[in-house]
Amino acid sequence: MARRIADPALIDLRKRIRHSAAHVLAESVLKLFPQAKPTIGPPTDDGFYYDFDVDRPFTPEDIEKIAELMRVSIKADHRFEESEIERSEARKRVQDNPYKLEIIEGIPEGEKITFARHGDFVDLCRGGHVRSTGEIAAFKLLSTAGAYWRGDERNRMLQRIYGTAWESGEELEKFLLQVAEAEKRDHRRLGTELQLYFFDPSAPASPFFLPKGATVYNGLIDYMRQLYRKYGYQEVITPQILNVDLWKRSGHYDNYRENMFVVEIDERQFGVKPMNCPAHALMYASTLRSYRDLPIRFADFGRLHRYERSGVTHGLTRVRSFSQDDAHIFCAPDQIGSEISGFISLLREAYQAFRFEELRVALSLRPEKRVGGEEIWDRAEVALEKVLEDSGLSFDKMPGEGAFYGPKIDFFVPDAIGREWQLGTVQLDFSLSERFDLEFVAEDGSRQRPVVIHRAALGSLERFIGVLVEHTAGALPLWLAPVQAVVIPITDRNVSYADEVRAKLAEAGLRAEVDRSNERMNAKIRAAQLQKVPYMLVIGDREQAAGNVAVRRRAGGDLGARPVDKVVRMLSDEVANRS
Amino acid sequence: MARRIADPALIDLRKRIRHSAAHVLAESVLKLFPQAKPTIGPPTDDGFYYDFDVDRPFTPEDIEKIAELMRVSIKADHRFEESEIERSEARKRVQDNPYKLEIIEGIPEGEKITFARHGDFVDLCRGGHVRSTGEIAAFKLLSTAGAYWRGDERNRMLQRIYGTAWESGEELEKFLLQVAEAEKRDHRRLGTELQLYFFDPSAPASPFFLPKGATVYNGLIDYMRQLYRKYGYQEVITPQILNVDLWKRSGHYDNYRENMFVVEIDERQFGVKPMNCPAHALMYASTLRSYRDLPIRFADFGRLHRYERSGVTHGLTRVRSFSQDDAHIFCAPDQIGSEISGFISLLREAYQAFRFEELRVALSLRPEKRVGGEEIWDRAEVALEKVLEDSGLSFDKMPGEGAFYGPKIDFFVPDAIGREWQLGTVQLDFSLSERFDLEFVAEDGSRQRPVVIHRAALGSLERFIGVLVEHTAGALPLWLAPVQAVVIPITDRNVSYADEVRAKLAEAGLRAEVDRSNERMNAKIRAAQLQKVPYMLVIGDREQAAGNVAVRRRAGGDLGARPVDKVVRMLSDEVANRS
Repeated sequence: MARRIADPALIDLRKRIRHSAAHVLAESVLKLFPQAKPTIGPPTDDGFYYDFDVDRPFTPEDIEKIAELMRVSIKADHRFEESEIERSEARKRVQDNPYKLEIIEGIPEGEKITFARHGDFVDLCRGGHVRSTGEIAAFKLLSTAGAYWRGDERNRMLQRIYGTAWESGEELEKFLLQVAEAEKRDHRRLGTELQLYFFDPSAPASPFFLPKGATVYNGLIDYMRQLYRKYGYQEVITPQILNVDLWKRSGHYDNYRENMFVVEIDERQFGVKPMNCPAHALMYASTLRSYRDLPIRFADFGRLHRYERSGVTHGLTRVRSFSQDDAHIFCAPDQIGSEISGFISLLREAYQAFRFEELRVALSLRPEKRVGGEEIWDRAEVALEKVLEDSGLSFDKMPGEGAFYGPKIDFFVPDAIGREWQLGTVQLDFSLSERFDLEFVAEDGSRQRPVVIHRAALGSLERFIGVLVEHTAGALPLWLAPVQAVVIPITDRNVSYADEVRAKLAEAGLRAEVDRSNERMNAKIRAAQLQKVPYMLVIGDREQAAGNVAVRRRAGGDLGARPVDKVVRMLSDEVANRS
Repeated sequence: MARRIADPALIDLRKRIRHSAAHVLAESVLKLFPQAKPTIGPPTDDGFYYDFDVDRPFTPEDIEKIAELMRVSIKADHRFEESEIERSEARKRVQDNPYKLEIIEGIPEGEKITFARHGDFVDLCRGGHVRSTGEIAAFKLLSTAGAYWRGDERNRMLQRIYGTAWESGEELEKFLLQVAEAEKRDHRRLGTELQLYFFDPSAPASPFFLPKGATVYNGLIDYMRQLYRKYGYQEVITPQILNVDLWKRSGHYDNYRENMFVVEIDERQFGVKPMNCPAHALMYASTLRSYRDLPIRFADFGRLHRYERSGVTHGLTRVRSFSQDDAHIFCAPDQIGSEISGFISLLREAYQAFRFEELRVALSLRPEKRVGGEEIWDRAEVALEKVLEDSGLSFDKMPGEGAFYGPKIDFFVPDAIGREWQLGTVQLDFSLSERFDLEFVAEDGSRQRPVVIHRAALGSLERFIGVLVEHTAGALPLWLAPVQAVVIPITDRNVSYADEVRAKLAEAGLRAEVDRSNERMNAKIRAAQLQKVPYMLVIGDREQAAGNVAVRRRAGGDLGARPVDKVVRMLSDEVANRS
């Protein structure tokens, strides 16, 4: 989910350190558990893991001993030596390990098979190590978990050990601090604590949004609708279950079927939509379009369903059921530049409202296999580059990384603790118009194909809420907070005045609650702070007599007593400005 | 879809007249086509039909001749005579007609089999005729259509003749006028003309809402949300695809399965939700509830899917994919009365906003087979009756018509041309809490079961839009109209001022367009009227010079020239008051 910004040489070094650390881990596990069968042990974005077939889960004491053995191996500074082995010999070497045998069977004939040795430990391995174990400057074993072989629950359950390794102790410490910070911000935990959403086994990877979570969700949609009005989009509502003929026509049936849910209706197959584009193509084609009608921008918050393996789903950030701030723009080829430019303006305005201040941009250019003539690719790539240059955004060009149907721009933001998330994307499509025979009548009366632009600024709203909760540690900006103010009466005498204050806030469209519990004032303030409520309005006899409230900000600022009407105006302005 | 209000004796008479007319129709068809095989010919709410197995479709000339033969039979005033026939003898009588044979096979052993004769025509028939054909005072054959035997497209296509029959020529005329009026208001035709929605074979019975239709759709949701805030509901968002264990627990798997779409995921069966209640029960159960938390009112605009046979789907009024203004109230038994009362207030406020002025109410009481003790039924029925009495609404009691899990109230409205539609419903449920083991901690610390109330005021939003379009003939109230005002510049000189006026309207949140076509003013006004736009704001040099617009109402009222700011305020007020 999270990607870190780093230079390619450093990324490569870390990958090699982590891959090497996995070898050292396997070596140490086998010293302690000679019967264990190692399976696979890849590096990951943040570290590495290794899966073993063993009789019982590893205990914390096991892990300590394993780490100690690893330190011994690293201190010995064994050199890594890779050697190519003949296939039949390779099979013989791993004959007692059915997992490694299966991996060898999966290597195509003719491809070479390599093993790596360090000290007296040898492992089947594609290569990519540091020179010697001593270069693993800093490592830590983090956790254990059960994991099915090949991620398939019909297979045997293996025991996984997670670890991380770095080029210096300092970097390791930084990483561990970030992990601790990330755990505090884990949107799954905060979702429960702040009563935003929950999950239930009856609908795997499909969130249930509680009233407060639904307020945030609908708040996102309302805000995007405001931007849609400003930027000239038209919202539409389309069916969710469409027959497979349509998905064949769009290409999803051939290229995306394993991610689609299929239903049988009247003895025909229907697909639950994973994307809105085919329905929007039908809508475009539902009437004859003229160049004067273009661009047409159809926005759709329709619910999408995509199959994800249960092993990769994660909280809100990877789900099977979600909606996007999705839209498709149908335009003439010479409108590509202005449409992309308009989208980038919308995106930057939106990110600003969510406190994502920085932006990294990647422009993916034509791949080898592609549809559409050279002329349209030339024109589109030049237009995209020019728009990005004019925008003042710095961007990386990624030759060959575009989709087969068109170039694209991806937008990444770092969050408050430095993790990077991909949010927005805008993608040209030279294929959809052909597949759906979309046309417009040009000024000269000829029939021409519109260009289709897929674009989303926030992406999946579910995922965006997950990212935003982690970015803000649950302290959502006032305009989006499910409860914007808690009114806190100090004594029972102040409750009815507190109700009046709440009613005034509600009349101005603000979401406010009165805390009528029997707790003391300080406990009430603490409760509101834990719930990340932006404003606490405290009322004692003095405030009540003067028609005031004592204003406290979530962040800790005590603004003192102010007249109710002024406070209502202050909060309303803050909401209106999304400040 | 439409139900007419009438006294039971009249309903029965019409049913007998129509059933008898179907016999006379079959008699006449056989005179003209001796090889035709009659199948079934039931009365309907508005008339009757009869399906025949014939070699070719009936032509308009055939229908004329058939009607003439019917008139002869009616004039002859043949008596209807019913007689019971022994099963084997009955089989013999219809031996050349496989359809009638199949019908006889479907009659359980021991049940009697009757035939009806009039003149020299005899037909297998359950009975229910008038005394003689002369009592068919007025009839008309209306249309023909192909129809599959048993409504199943794998069976042979039959030829259907639709007709209607009444107790007097006057009633027939009234009916035909209403049909003509209904055709003018047909929401399927108006949906296309007003660019609100369309259908496509890729998603049968699942509407595509074009931008204007989506504006209306979202307008309904926005309005219901306002009412939710006022009446203390909390909106939630729940998954659409849930595993069958849940549907077994809720009872839908046993009682509603043929209407559910089923998906296989990870080798397990999942149901696409036809209703929100099980998800809301899970949400209720997601935390411990106290009597102090009750009532809890979960509202959900989640999309629902229900299988309907292609023979019965119709425009927006019977679809397979829709959302409801659905909510479930979880309350203590002694809160039933106040919750029902609050719902009725919400419903009446909503209907007022849509110009449904009259209301018919039916209270359905305990059926023979039911769950829940006598005490809760007594208490609930008394509470419902009292609420209805206090509301001042007249209502009919329907003994035995309640659901097995609780009593219910249905709300019917007549539309502008007198057809009656069921819209709202509120239904108590004494079963769901048991099935999902829902509890709350009562004041005395004991665990008790909440009562669940299912309720919707508008029902399916798709169906409601269909009804509303027919009720208003497409002239939606200002607050809901997709385009609220068209600004009409008389000459090119007035276009930029027209743009300014539009911008002022937009700033006030009004949906306005400028007609920049090259048409003349009168053509532009006609176009706006055809599109049922509530206000036309005409701008010539004189209006422009004075900072005015000339205001015309859709209904035809010319309000003369007025200052722009006043017009903006007038329209804004009208929207705010939903007047």
